[in-house]
Amino acid sequence: MVDYLLRNKLTSILEEDLALGDITTEILIEPKTAEAEVISREEGIIAGVTEARELLEMTGITVLESVEDGQCVGQGDVVIRFRGVNRSILMVERTLLNIISRMSGIASITSRYIEIAKRVSPDIRIAATRKTAPGLRWLDKKAVTIGGGDAHRIALHDLVLIKDNHIDAVGDVATAITRARSRASFVRKIEVEVSKADDAVIAIEAGADVVMLDNMSVAEIKETVEMIEARGDRKRVIIEASGNVNMDNIENIASTGVDVISIGSLTHSVSALDLTLSFSSSG
Amino acid sequence: MVDYLLRNKLTSILEEDLALGDITTEILIEPKTAEAEVISREEGIIAGVTEARELLEMTGITVLESVEDGQCVGQGDVVIRFRGVNRSILMVERTLLNIISRMSGIASITSRYIEIAKRVSPDIRIAATRKTAPGLRWLDKKAVTIGGGDAHRIALHDLVLIKDNHIDAVGDVATAITRARSRASFVRKIEVEVSKADDAVIAIEAGADVVMLDNMSVAEIKETVEMIEARGDRKRVIIEASGNVNMDNIENIASTGVDVISIGSLTHSVSALDLTLSFSSSG
Amino acid sequence: MVDYLLRNKLTSILEEDLALGDITTEILIEPKTAEAEVISREEGIIAGVTEARELLEMTGITVLESVEDGQCVGQGDVVIRFRGVNRSILMVERTLLNIISRMSGIASITSRYIEIAKRVSPDIRIAATRKTAPGLRWLDKKAVTIGGGDAHRIALHDLVLIKDNHIDAVGDVATAITRARSRASFVRKIEVEVSKADDAVIAIEAGADVVMLDNMSVAEIKETVEMIEARGDRKRVIIEASGNVNMDNIENIASTGVDVISIGSLTHSVSALDLTLSFSSSG
Amino acid sequence: MVDYLLRNKLTSILEEDLALGDITTEILIEPKTAEAEVISREEGIIAGVTEARELLEMTGITVLESVEDGQCVGQGDVVIRFRGVNRSILMVERTLLNIISRMSGIASITSRYIEIAKRVSPDIRIAATRKTAPGLRWLDKKAVTIGGGDAHRIALHDLVLIKDNHIDAVGDVATAITRARSRASFVRKIEVEVSKADDAVIAIEAGADVVMLDNMSVAEIKETVEMIEARGDRKRVIIEASGNVNMDNIENIASTGVDVISIGSLTHSVSALDLTLSFSSSG
Amino acid sequence: MVDYLLRNKLTSILEEDLALGDITTEILIEPKTAEAEVISREEGIIAGVTEARELLEMTGITVLESVEDGQCVGQGDVVIRFRGVNRSILMVERTLLNIISRMSGIASITSRYIEIAKRVSPDIRIAATRKTAPGLRWLDKKAVTIGGGDAHRIALHDLVLIKDNHIDAVGDVATAITRARSRASFVRKIEVEVSKADDAVIAIEAGADVVMLDNMSVAEIKETVEMIEARGDRKRVIIEASGNVNMDNIENIASTGVDVISIGSLTHSVSALDLTLSFSSSG
Amino acid sequence: MVDYLLRNKLTSILEEDLALGDITTEILIEPKTAEAEVISREEGIIAGVTEARELLEMTGITVLESVEDGQCVGQGDVVIRFRGVNRSILMVERTLLNIISRMSGIASITSRYIEIAKRVSPDIRIAATRKTAPGLRWLDKKAVTIGGGDAHRIALHDLVLIKDNHIDAVGDVATAITRARSRASFVRKIEVEVSKADDAVIAIEAGADVVMLDNMSVAEIKETVEMIEARGDRKRVIIEASGNVNMDNIENIASTGVDVISIGSLTHSVSALDLTLSFSSSG
Repeated sequence: MVDYLLRNKLTSILEEDLALGDITTEILIEPKTAEAEVISREEGIIAGVTEARELLEMTGITVLESVEDGQCVGQGDVVIRFRGVNRSILMVERTLLNIISRMSGIASITSRYIEIAKRVSPDIRIAATRKTAPGLRWLDKKAVTIGGGDAHRIALHDLVLIKDNHIDAVGDVATAITRARSRASFVRKIEVEVSKADDAVIAIEAGADVVMLDNMSVAEIKETVEMIEARGDRKRVIIEASGNVNMDNIENIASTGVDVISIGSLTHSVSALDLTLSFSSSG
Repeated sequence: MVDYLLRNKLTSILEEDLALGDITTEILIEPKTAEAEVISREEGIIAGVTEARELLEMTGITVLESVEDGQCVGQGDVVIRFRGVNRSILMVERTLLNIISRMSGIASITSRYIEIAKRVSPDIRIAATRKTAPGLRWLDKKAVTIGGGDAHRIALHDLVLIKDNHIDAVGDVATAITRARSRASFVRKIEVEVSKADDAVIAIEAGADVVMLDNMSVAEIKETVEMIEARGDRKRVIIEASGNVNMDNIENIASTGVDVISIGSLTHSVSALDLTLSFSSSG
Repeated sequence: MVDYLLRNKLTSILEEDLALGDITTEILIEPKTAEAEVISREEGIIAGVTEARELLEMTGITVLESVEDGQCVGQGDVVIRFRGVNRSILMVERTLLNIISRMSGIASITSRYIEIAKRVSPDIRIAATRKTAPGLRWLDKKAVTIGGGDAHRIALHDLVLIKDNHIDAVGDVATAITRARSRASFVRKIEVEVSKADDAVIAIEAGADVVMLDNMSVAEIKETVEMIEARGDRKRVIIEASGNVNMDNIENIASTGVDVISIGSLTHSVSALDLTLSFSSSG
Repeated sequence: MVDYLLRNKLTSILEEDLALGDITTEILIEPKTAEAEVISREEGIIAGVTEARELLEMTGITVLESVEDGQCVGQGDVVIRFRGVNRSILMVERTLLNIISRMSGIASITSRYIEIAKRVSPDIRIAATRKTAPGLRWLDKKAVTIGGGDAHRIALHDLVLIKDNHIDAVGDVATAITRARSRASFVRKIEVEVSKADDAVIAIEAGADVVMLDNMSVAEIKETVEMIEARGDRKRVIIEASGNVNMDNIENIASTGVDVISIGSLTHSVSALDLTLSFSSSG
Repeated sequence: MVDYLLRNKLTSILEEDLALGDITTEILIEPKTAEAEVISREEGIIAGVTEARELLEMTGITVLESVEDGQCVGQGDVVIRFRGVNRSILMVERTLLNIISRMSGIASITSRYIEIAKRVSPDIRIAATRKTAPGLRWLDKKAVTIGGGDAHRIALHDLVLIKDNHIDAVGDVATAITRARSRASFVRKIEVEVSKADDAVIAIEAGADVVMLDNMSVAEIKETVEMIEARGDRKRVIIEASGNVNMDNIENIASTGVDVISIGSLTHSVSALDLTLSFSSSG
Repeated sequence: MVDYLLRNKLTSILEEDLALGDITTEILIEPKTAEAEVISREEGIIAGVTEARELLEMTGITVLESVEDGQCVGQGDVVIRFRGVNRSILMVERTLLNIISRMSGIASITSRYIEIAKRVSPDIRIAATRKTAPGLRWLDKKAVTIGGGDAHRIALHDLVLIKDNHIDAVGDVATAITRARSRASFVRKIEVEVSKADDAVIAIEAGADVVMLDNMSVAEIKETVEMIEARGDRKRVIIEASGNVNMDNIENIASTGVDVISIGSLTHSVSALDLTLSFSSSG
């Protein structure tokens, strides 16, 4: 999203808090230039700095310094420091914190999964799903990317992903893939969701670019990867594992040799990073 | 939000997934009437049914039956069942689940906090804050309400809430309140955030309708409540406790005798309720 | 409304006059820097200066000086003076005047009511209603505030205001209030509209924060206020009088001792302040 | 405006009152079918019926009967009667009344001016100006039309109207008109604002389609019309009088023989028609 | 369209290409200041420079020099040169070229028609129709104007244009015109579409300002013009020819003496001017 | 685009013609039910039927029958027939024709290219580019698809397409691809634009999914394809030819053995299909 388009998104976010004004600040605060900073209360990966800069600029506040998106901060570290009219700072405070803390929460958990998975499989990717907060698809996916993850598809149009219902409607895996290859644009990859090793093999034979092993046990995943390798098809396909991934099983899944592990909770069950705003001066 | 206005919100949510179409479904699925249902995979309080109904209707799908907002479901229970063109169901599936699962996640945790708090203080309220996901203020607050909680203020204009920065700017608590009372509309309540018992007393004397005890220990909260009671001011004011509330300390805080406990994590760190969609027939 | 959000509102207002351009100006006027000023042709209270500044800035015009919102001007006084491209000034002229003249008309009449009412009741408030021009709620209410009035509620969500139809539906005043107190957020005040002194008393007993005496005669209002005072409830409640208030009866109503008088005509029957734009130089 | 486009306008109007819901109604009213009607409390010309019907339909309410736009009603007459869910009726009530009462106020005063003017000049037209409420250009102009008036130009692009500032910039009246005729599309009329009889004559010679006599006295207007007639140009041009027209001078101005009288106050200083909504049944 | 309003139009155009970002550029290009220019690969009239400047400014790019709208360029000529961040230039490139190349294609063909027509009829106008690309009415019409053409009506409200279906509904040409004259605002012209010389005469008698000869042969057009001249009505009316105009018949139609020739293909069948963007430096 | 979202697009298209109404029709036509049909005046492939149906339904018109998108029609054939209020039909006529005639023009020319190319290369694809009319990306691409073509990427985010400027910035083809593979999501294909056979080979070695041969002569294209085949890489890559493709050279380019030919003029230089609307009855 270029800056100009981002403004429209941020405007609609600002509106839900500020459309009718901040009566407390308007009533009590005389306009005065002040400096303030967002400080982290816990360790994490910061995301949302680009959005924060745009938001502050939109409201006439000048950013003095900030960490970069993707940078790790510890407790007490300054995330972003800025100067502007005290009234504007107070009005934008909550929106600013809500954006950075959610995005940083997503980046931080993504980063933690990656760290664990890469210990056993250095080239593995941790990917997001479309299980994002309604209206926040783009920001949620961007936060995953900042945390080192893979955004996966952004929307329903940018990847052919054949799921069980599609296969049921068509009849079988191979026919579905053949039909998709002939009807979809040549610029799209074709991914197929399977729950059995046999179907994975059929999918690869039929020309799938990516095979998603859905809700399979670690043992089944491992067996499927091995079967594909044994058939000499390992290089022709990207293998993705998905379903009920958590901190407890991520290492085992990563050790099966899959290329990608996708995790819905990265974005559907976010813990916001704990941030606070404090005025550093009012001169 | 009346139905017609809700449609605009849902449209913008739908757009992020569907604006350029669902290429997989368009390529593979012949239009056919089908029935499907959203099923819960875990126990929880359902919220988002009104939104789900509107969303389904917008896309030409007929709801056959559903639970009510606020109803408790168990694992395997049907949340909502509907009939429509299979292509439409597949296209709206993810948006539908994202909305209900987030809202139900919020309602469920709210309900759990309330259950614990009410054991020791039957009339207590559990309230949300403005720490909502960007763009989801209204839906997040509604989910808290459905879970039995109190929405607190929706936006910056609908309550005068005097915080430390406002007090610093004005000089002292009493002056801030006096000024707010004379300048704000008579239809607004005035709340003041304090971190010391003395300030709470001053605030009440000056005419605050609500006093928020911010980040105080359970002992300090208790002492403040008692001091207010001792002065005969208990009935004149609503006392709210806020800051770092969690499952471990909620009971103790509730037992101090405050009227309201507000909890940021209800909406800033949501665990989505685990839901799935399955086709029940395709006739 | 922060400046950035105000722009969106002003854009849609500009569009209705200028979306397809100002053909006269485009055809006849060579771009040249010029100075112009808005001059008042009659005495009044100016409102809309903030909006005017934003509008002018949006169209690349620099404000040189202006009165403040709420300032009183006489015939011939300069309201706002600015410099910019002559074409831009001509294009924005009508929109600019329409905004300031309506807002100033509202502020001026509000101020006149207040002046009269305060003569007999120095602490009284004159309040607006929701009888605003469609789409202009926020600007109309702001103009009332600038004129010294009270905005009352902005929209249906920010005050519980129980009217006769609500009472009819519930059964009686007391039940309606009790139900509202338990179901509404603790941050909202509860106001009840009554047309008899008895109901006012019942409402106060049941915990109403504000009682609106609707369409009652001056004598009835007076009697009700006295009854409330006699019962020792005067400090517990805000009393608002409403209905058919005009320049002829405002003083009498104010003298009854009510706290607030709300007047629909402040915003539903506005006389625009007579303003004109003139070019002061074209160098 | 076709119905579908009108909905977007009405939606944004609804949003300012209802975007966050009607908390009173939501808290207190059980959904039930009811009938209600808008009743006039004074005599006037009704306008806004088309908009009212669309608004009601949007919110799921069925119109049972209504007067037509332009129809005269007396005190106590039913303007529109409808049936729907009581909650929806209560939520839309104020928006509905605000639209009809403003539009009817405009139509009524327009009609009164026309009645007077036509007594002395049966073919005369009473026209609106662009002095409309911000954002309400289209509805205000439509109301004038319903009242029997002429909408004049809707926006800056749909008529070449050469004013004093344009003439100053170009140098003289004749050059301005010649230039406008060559540069504007042949589908546009060209109107020129003049304040002296001589300029009116020059304008007509140069090919103006309409001449506006701005802020001239009744005597001057009369003299100008006669001079034009004397020169044999009367049929070639439409003569419009404008500036400080009111109930006291309208008859005299009309008697000068001008074709059109335009009146800013029709839309900039509206008195809303007094309407009320009452529930007629709740079965 | 003033600059500020143009931005909204350009934003929605930008969004279709850039809303989710330019992944290639984001992945591969380090931000660096660069200079680039749009170069024409063929001869033509440039249009869209105003839009291009706005678009570049919106994305933070500074225009260094450019031709003027309406200027003729040859192969290899620089249309517009600018400096900005290389990433921004790459992101906006396609949108920029799409706008200028379409608008310039329209201006160029318009100019070619005008050149031919004016050879035989120096005062003739070449006009556009409403056969524009959906959503591009304003830009298409503007390009015609820049090419020297006449925009004709922009939308259905800004000219009364009575077509055969309208005449059929009313009964006859004269009644339709009489009715339109009495019902339409006096600021609108009235045009009538006829396909026979007799109807043209009737239309003029009835007071039509413009007569459109629709789909008539050159001979019929000529005969109609002569008949009108013979009756002494030539000065009272503007005559427009329309229907199947092309490069082969334009000269003959122009030589009939009509005032205006309108051509649908100017905007419904555009050949984009061939333009390319190249980086001239990256320092 | 699901129906509901399409409505928003169509609304903004309708607005440019109809926002202020169709004054001619409003003034002259009494509402009456009528039937009308869109008839083709030339042979072609129809596209835009889905959009037409939605547009008609939005304006309350019922479609009686229509051809399917992609169907071939001849001169005089009915494209779509419908019944509705005559006023609505007249108001929507031009918008309806503009949409179908542009989309059908695109589909028809696409189909003609495909027919020629497939004669010599039965599996070849003809693809669109991003050279679409501003704001019409989605409809233009859809029309290409209906004509049998390949939509190629819709926007900048849905394919990594490395062009010369990207390669220059990175240093060389291989590095650019390697970097893109590691940084882009695994769900995206990577395409590289090259202008020399050697670079095509390097691109394939580095892992490009698609190679675009840009502005190469037929001989060079042929040689490149052969070189790739000789190296045994033909199956690993999709080869696209692009640049200055027209009716004269399409067959030769197709015969080189490339997989895809992309053609900018399909959408940047459209000839609208000639369609007309006629009323078939008015009962």
